[in-house]
Amino acid sequence: MTVRVGIIGVGIMGADHARKINGSISGAEVSAVADFDAGRASSIAAELRGASVAADGFALIADEGVDAVIVASHDSTHAELVHAALAANKPVLCEKPLAPTAVECRGIIAAQGDRDLITVGFMRRFDPAYAELERAAAVERIGERLVAHCVSRNVQAGPGDSSATITNSAIHELDIMPWLLGSPITEVSWHAGRTSKHSGIRQDPQIMLLRTESDVLITLELFVNARYGYDTRCEIVGEDGVASFAVPAHVIVDSGLRRSIDYPLDWIPRYAEAYRLELQEWVDSIEQGRPSTLADAEAGLRAGLVADALVESMNDGGRKVTVEY
Amino acid sequence: MTVRVGIIGVGIMGADHARKINGSISGAEVSAVADFDAGRASSIAAELRGASVAADGFALIADEGVDAVIVASHDSTHAELVHAALAANKPVLCEKPLAPTAVECRGIIAAQGDRDLITVGFMRRFDPAYAELERAAAVERIGERLVAHCVSRNVQAGPGDSSATITNSAIHELDIMPWLLGSPITEVSWHAGRTSKHSGIRQDPQIMLLRTESDVLITLELFVNARYGYDTRCEIVGEDGVASFAVPAHVIVDSGLRRSIDYPLDWIPRYAEAYRLELQEWVDSIEQGRPSTLADAEAGLRAGLVADALVESMNDGGRKVTVEY
Amino acid sequence: MTVRVGIIGVGIMGADHARKINGSISGAEVSAVADFDAGRASSIAAELRGASVAADGFALIADEGVDAVIVASHDSTHAELVHAALAANKPVLCEKPLAPTAVECRGIIAAQGDRDLITVGFMRRFDPAYAELERAAAVERIGERLVAHCVSRNVQAGPGDSSATITNSAIHELDIMPWLLGSPITEVSWHAGRTSKHSGIRQDPQIMLLRTESDVLITLELFVNARYGYDTRCEIVGEDGVASFAVPAHVIVDSGLRRSIDYPLDWIPRYAEAYRLELQEWVDSIEQGRPSTLADAEAGLRAGLVADALVESMNDGGRKVTVEY
Amino acid sequence: MTVRVGIIGVGIMGADHARKINGSISGAEVSAVADFDAGRASSIAAELRGASVAADGFALIADEGVDAVIVASHDSTHAELVHAALAANKPVLCEKPLAPTAVECRGIIAAQGDRDLITVGFMRRFDPAYAELERAAAVERIGERLVAHCVSRNVQAGPGDSSATITNSAIHELDIMPWLLGSPITEVSWHAGRTSKHSGIRQDPQIMLLRTESDVLITLELFVNARYGYDTRCEIVGEDGVASFAVPAHVIVDSGLRRSIDYPLDWIPRYAEAYRLELQEWVDSIEQGRPSTLADAEAGLRAGLVADALVESMNDGGRKVTVEY
Repeated sequence: MTVRVGIIGVGIMGADHARKINGSISGAEVSAVADFDAGRASSIAAELRGASVAADGFALIADEGVDAVIVASHDSTHAELVHAALAANKPVLCEKPLAPTAVECRGIIAAQGDRDLITVGFMRRFDPAYAELERAAAVERIGERLVAHCVSRNVQAGPGDSSATITNSAIHELDIMPWLLGSPITEVSWHAGRTSKHSGIRQDPQIMLLRTESDVLITLELFVNARYGYDTRCEIVGEDGVASFAVPAHVIVDSGLRRSIDYPLDWIPRYAEAYRLELQEWVDSIEQGRPSTLADAEAGLRAGLVADALVESMNDGGRKVTVEY
Repeated sequence: MTVRVGIIGVGIMGADHARKINGSISGAEVSAVADFDAGRASSIAAELRGASVAADGFALIADEGVDAVIVASHDSTHAELVHAALAANKPVLCEKPLAPTAVECRGIIAAQGDRDLITVGFMRRFDPAYAELERAAAVERIGERLVAHCVSRNVQAGPGDSSATITNSAIHELDIMPWLLGSPITEVSWHAGRTSKHSGIRQDPQIMLLRTESDVLITLELFVNARYGYDTRCEIVGEDGVASFAVPAHVIVDSGLRRSIDYPLDWIPRYAEAYRLELQEWVDSIEQGRPSTLADAEAGLRAGLVADALVESMNDGGRKVTVEY
Repeated sequence: MTVRVGIIGVGIMGADHARKINGSISGAEVSAVADFDAGRASSIAAELRGASVAADGFALIADEGVDAVIVASHDSTHAELVHAALAANKPVLCEKPLAPTAVECRGIIAAQGDRDLITVGFMRRFDPAYAELERAAAVERIGERLVAHCVSRNVQAGPGDSSATITNSAIHELDIMPWLLGSPITEVSWHAGRTSKHSGIRQDPQIMLLRTESDVLITLELFVNARYGYDTRCEIVGEDGVASFAVPAHVIVDSGLRRSIDYPLDWIPRYAEAYRLELQEWVDSIEQGRPSTLADAEAGLRAGLVADALVESMNDGGRKVTVEY
Repeated sequence: MTVRVGIIGVGIMGADHARKINGSISGAEVSAVADFDAGRASSIAAELRGASVAADGFALIADEGVDAVIVASHDSTHAELVHAALAANKPVLCEKPLAPTAVECRGIIAAQGDRDLITVGFMRRFDPAYAELERAAAVERIGERLVAHCVSRNVQAGPGDSSATITNSAIHELDIMPWLLGSPITEVSWHAGRTSKHSGIRQDPQIMLLRTESDVLITLELFVNARYGYDTRCEIVGEDGVASFAVPAHVIVDSGLRRSIDYPLDWIPRYAEAYRLELQEWVDSIEQGRPSTLADAEAGLRAGLVADALVESMNDGGRKVTVEY
């Protein structure tokens, strides 16, 4: 059986998913695309021989030639499209965020009931480096986990406010760290100092302190205009040892009195393999009629609640805020 | 169109190809398998729902349900199976070596004529690290290439003679270095000193000096009982800089007064992505009816001729031997 | 001229200074030692041919054969010995802390007046790695400094309370970070989560947030029972780049499926060169009658005030505390 | 007792020794200098308060105010100055080479008789990285040593012939590798391919194969116009593991899509500590009237004999040449 996938939103992320499904995924093909920019939809459909163009996301979801749906359109459209997929009883992979507010996330979860239809695109769970870090940072290997340090740096970001960088960028750490540590985040505080001149109106960098239910304290630096390269760092400190990311690099170059490795410009090369493995697992789970190991709707809600608490701390002088689930 | 692949030989390598084709490759499925061990063939066929078991390699090649053939059986069977695939006019991906002698390779090339049917499994050409090394070691970046240093180390190898390690293990460097440097190897010499007590009857390690037509001198250490880990190293020295492999590692562990990364036990994790990309390109080229970027039969012949010259040097006191193409 | 140095306290630190002065420093020799353990003093004096044993620290300071004094005795004795050296008008290098309380530090500073006699043993200012980090993290190279991350880990520490680890261990960061960043620390907060089972009664690890007057936010993890090795890390994040410590290692060992480097057991090998360079500069400045580049008494006071503020935050639920100079 | 050192030749190397003796060495001072450039001698003497200027090297050796002599003048002068020091019965540290020919080396050794007066400036024996490599590459840790790989690269070198680079640059490896491996070099061959356009008339890079009496095979790349940085690499491959140099770096900089460390321009920063420790041991051994652990005259002869064999191989088509001691 080939899973026929419809993709709503074929911007950078949706188009990348489309090409992966048709070029690198076993057992799936893109059967339909939709985009508010009709020309972009047609262009991608032409590239993917055999895909039709739907009038809009709802038409795509209703299409009988679509078995499963990817929502990669603007954040503001996610909730109603996911509701439509639920109504059509079709599996849906929704890029984060599942919905802009916790209330809406909870509405989606209620509508899903006991079905396993919704997955959220927290692709880091499929990144080979995070997978290896999870194994290396197991309690059996480094002892009880005590502290973690995360750094998330982008080369540049357009102007915007600080809360948006939390809900869009830091959200990945807010999902992956509880996943890595096996414990939800229960308390947060937000801190900042001097802001980079490259960063427009927002606070940048930001420092966040997160505490898990298991009492692990996490420091998180988010810096969306770090200039030097796209960089995700993570270090888990345990009672008997420490596990951390190596800097990903295939090749070293010696020249001009320097020994150097290259940083990527953005997240796409860094997480290409994670996206591929995530899509393959999603397709396999649909084909085999079993729950996937992707993040579920509850995970999407939890990350959103932590982000909300961080924004509350930011707006209240860095006060410690408890996360209520 | 789905390319229906038949696999002859489902030992470690063939079974790995089979699982990749059915689990990670777009546009292909395994339709038949054959193996001299009928039980092993049945077991793999059962795992790959939908694959039949052929009586032998020749029956598999003749099967109308097979569009393309992978030869992963014992080295001694390669030549006649490739001839059979040519006779059936089906694309064939043959694990190295194409044939045990240059005479037989030349016979295969003659039988192929001007068709593009034969590809040889030099998967390193698809390894992301080699691909990046090729770009980093381009003349535009490090200047004219002058010297290269290669190290190829395995954890352990059963007893055997030194010439077999050249034709089985060093053969990968003998293909990839001309590919990287854009120039064939024209002169070789073989050297050895003390042999490891772990290495049975063969000389181990061996040091080879290779010279390309472009006058790049290459040192190659082959050590098949290096114990500490599976390790491929490569460094290209140019007039203006040097490009080399970083040690591949996702994660660093600090414990017990050590900071360490892990080595793999064998080549399978090191080259998993290379095999996947090689298979995807092979399937895509078949589907699209175009030549692939895999190594062709001539590449298989050339690497074999260099190996023969090294064995000649080994048997003649380390004398310099010219490679005749 | 040879500077004749008297050393008060010849435990690990004082004995190390003594051996360095007699074995690795130009222009100085140890002329006298004193220790509350008379046997230890005699033993070191015998090892250092030519050094006499003084009855106690005050007798040593009064000795006409002593030009300059090192105070490496118990912390509780520092203040009165430094006062005695000031009274004798002799240069004194006092191991940190200068005095247990800010009030006593201020008394010492007042007694010194406009003389340049007191230096404090913040040897990291002479560590070649910190010196190179200071150059690499200059504003001209990485832009305005925005954030810094420090990690200070010891293998193990005896039982004790958390405030003692701040005043004894974290104190080095409290001196070096303002030195590196060219701005004093003006606000602190203290945080902790789960404590290691290896850590006796104290909170361990501890996380501290420090803010400089220039609004750089510093995270500091102090973990005195980290087990895996002695490790000092420091990273300075600027608007245009980041400078950080490389892991210090001369040699890599590949064995047992691991590639590894060694961590030291304690600070002595890590900072051996820093101690040597500090002592040489101290001796040179005395010989040449000029102020040294060692930390002065005011630096000792400032670091102590930041430590006091951290202890206050610790005792008050992690509240932000302003440092008053 | 203070050892009064006379230095003959105060070019880069001799002046560096002079400053170290007066600024960083315990128990010694420079009492006299000599140089064929009288102005340079006066200038250094003025910098070293208290040093006199001798009319020439022989006058310096004869000076009663000189206890021990460093010969850092032109290579062609070494032999006769060492003879003069022997005649005066004064310890002499001679920069390599001890003498331009083996015959002259043997004459010096004969003149020395059973005295321990001559030491040769193979400072790498005191380099902390080589010292740690020696320990890490011990038979007990990595098993019997089988192969070694050395790389010696300089940023640039003036025009010259290839044999001079062997006797001046490669000579350090020709001394240190037998020291590391505990076995003399008994057979060599010389190889080269394409030469860098930056390299004037010489072959550059050169590849040498060296075999020790213990049957360890050593590859050595010497590249004196490598442009990218001054770089010494060494890797020892044993039956159970591998020990190699880490790249020496204190600090990493992330900027401009690169993560990089700096290479030095020349050997001086790389071996500064080796020179200091070598001089301290030389001074200590003189003061204590015992043999030093510096390289002795026989070591100077042995390295020269290996260099001669390499030049013979170079002049004879890369033939294997046996080293006769």
